[in-house]
Amino acid sequence: MNTAQASAILREVGLRDGLQSIARVLPTAHKLAWIRDAYAAGQREIEIGSFVPARLLPQLADTAELVAFAKTLPGLVASVLVPNLKGAERALEVRADAMLLPLSASHAHSLANLRKTPDEAVADVARIVDLCHAQRADTLVEVGISTAFGCTLQGEVKPSEVLRLVQAVLDAGADRVGLADTVGYADPLMVSRLFEQVLKVAGDKLNCGHFHDTRGMGIANVMAAWNLGITRFDACLAGIGGCPHAPGASGNVATEDAAYLFASMGVHTGIDFDRLMRLRADVAQWLDGETLHGTLWCAGLPKTMLNQETL
Amino acid sequence: MNTAQASAILREVGLRDGLQSIARVLPTAHKLAWIRDAYAAGQREIEIGSFVPARLLPQLADTAELVAFAKTLPGLVASVLVPNLKGAERALEVRADAMLLPLSASHAHSLANLRKTPDEAVADVARIVDLCHAQRADTLVEVGISTAFGCTLQGEVKPSEVLRLVQAVLDAGADRVGLADTVGYADPLMVSRLFEQVLKVAGDKLNCGHFHDTRGMGIANVMAAWNLGITRFDACLAGIGGCPHAPGASGNVATEDAAYLFASMGVHTGIDFDRLMRLRADVAQWLDGETLHGTLWCAGLPKTMLNQETL
Repeated sequence: MNTAQASAILREVGLRDGLQSIARVLPTAHKLAWIRDAYAAGQREIEIGSFVPARLLPQLADTAELVAFAKTLPGLVASVLVPNLKGAERALEVRADAMLLPLSASHAHSLANLRKTPDEAVADVARIVDLCHAQRADTLVEVGISTAFGCTLQGEVKPSEVLRLVQAVLDAGADRVGLADTVGYADPLMVSRLFEQVLKVAGDKLNCGHFHDTRGMGIANVMAAWNLGITRFDACLAGIGGCPHAPGASGNVATEDAAYLFASMGVHTGIDFDRLMRLRADVAQWLDGETLHGTLWCAGLPKTMLNQETL
Repeated sequence: MNTAQASAILREVGLRDGLQSIARVLPTAHKLAWIRDAYAAGQREIEIGSFVPARLLPQLADTAELVAFAKTLPGLVASVLVPNLKGAERALEVRADAMLLPLSASHAHSLANLRKTPDEAVADVARIVDLCHAQRADTLVEVGISTAFGCTLQGEVKPSEVLRLVQAVLDAGADRVGLADTVGYADPLMVSRLFEQVLKVAGDKLNCGHFHDTRGMGIANVMAAWNLGITRFDACLAGIGGCPHAPGASGNVATEDAAYLFASMGVHTGIDFDRLMRLRADVAQWLDGETLHGTLWCAGLPKTMLNQETL
């Protein structure tokens, strides 16, 4: 058990990973309210959107406007997903605090999703790092190794390939790296083993776990990584972000359930439960008709935690 | 990580803990089919029902008939819940392989649920053990310490009280003891701490974890106990067994999700996934209109596991 760490960070990725997998376009006003209220509920890292062409993801076309608003909230780390050099240029223009570069450890998924091989994606990371340096930008460059635990297209993804790519992106100058179970194939033993190996290569530059709850292992996987000293996790309010290959399947780990996990263990996340639940109710209304997930919202906090103001 | 244990046992408790919390009475023919098909799917421990007065739980009034059928299935461990001496007499009459005696560590819950104090329940355990000895019965006596992690009525339940009661029921002659998170208050850190303490008192007589997924921590809690060497867990197909204090909240850990957890980690449970999923579909039809839970059923097995015949 990890008891050395007194706090954990939950990065809200509902506005990006969540909304990109839902066909409808959430109005910008709702997204602004989401960012405002997530901040008010104590969340201090939010993945605001993605700089991909609007024709590919019209759901995220307002990312620049959202980042501009996020930048007005003191202490909020506003990150954006960036698939290529062009996206990175836009992220730098809006002065995003961090950019997340996806790099798929599955060759098949990399070609299908990014239309480049993993090694071509590594070369892009190097170019983007160079761009940041040239502009003397203080935007953090984080690489998310997706399909790190397996892939719906390719099947198995070898840990040795994940290790090779982590080393390559660190050599290319990435500030941080995270491991993502994009399709929900991971179990706690896989998480322990892979994080343990990658920690040996990356040390504290490995500082994000991104888990989907597609097969019900999400919270257990968060816990497995936490036990190795990982303190930063992606999560989506109401567990949105389902996999297109499994209609109705759960998406990302639900923010509220992950916040409850940590709060119950006495680990500070800074999240105000009541505010987060009110925001969840708003999001549920905005996304009326979509399948939401998460478990805590229904039962509420245990009697033993009701007087805690902040989780 | 627990790697010393090569197999885990999932006791199906859907027919008891699941059905007792659902108002409708499932016809005996469906229950017989459930037992038959769970056995065919590889399950070798099933909590068949409960010997409580039929006026209190009409859903479980056919327990004797079901045990008689279960006894015809070679190698199946048929257990029944027994709330008092009278129930134990009936369990011995039908030659149940094991009887589960609930004992609530919460004084308030004990009075509300069993109409006796925890210490009066300990005295009952002693009387039941004596009865078994007098009849030279080979029925195992297992005590389930319920509300071991907290209580919706009383709030906090002190670990010291759980330890005291475990020692008392072992002194009274119980063969086995399990810890139950009856209301879904536990987190993995609480599970680690309490199981660790109880293991010191009970050793391998502590051999069951019973977790509810009310707040999404079920699988993570199973994993925390597994990491301490616990290899036997209660689970309900489709996660039925919700708490009456939290309408719509998840019930017990879903059998199929727990089976997947272990299978993915290479731990044998003997469960055939396809057969279990067909049974789940039947149960869903029999319980049409009830809220079911569990996550795996929707997405199915990962591509990497599709050719495995048995989980």
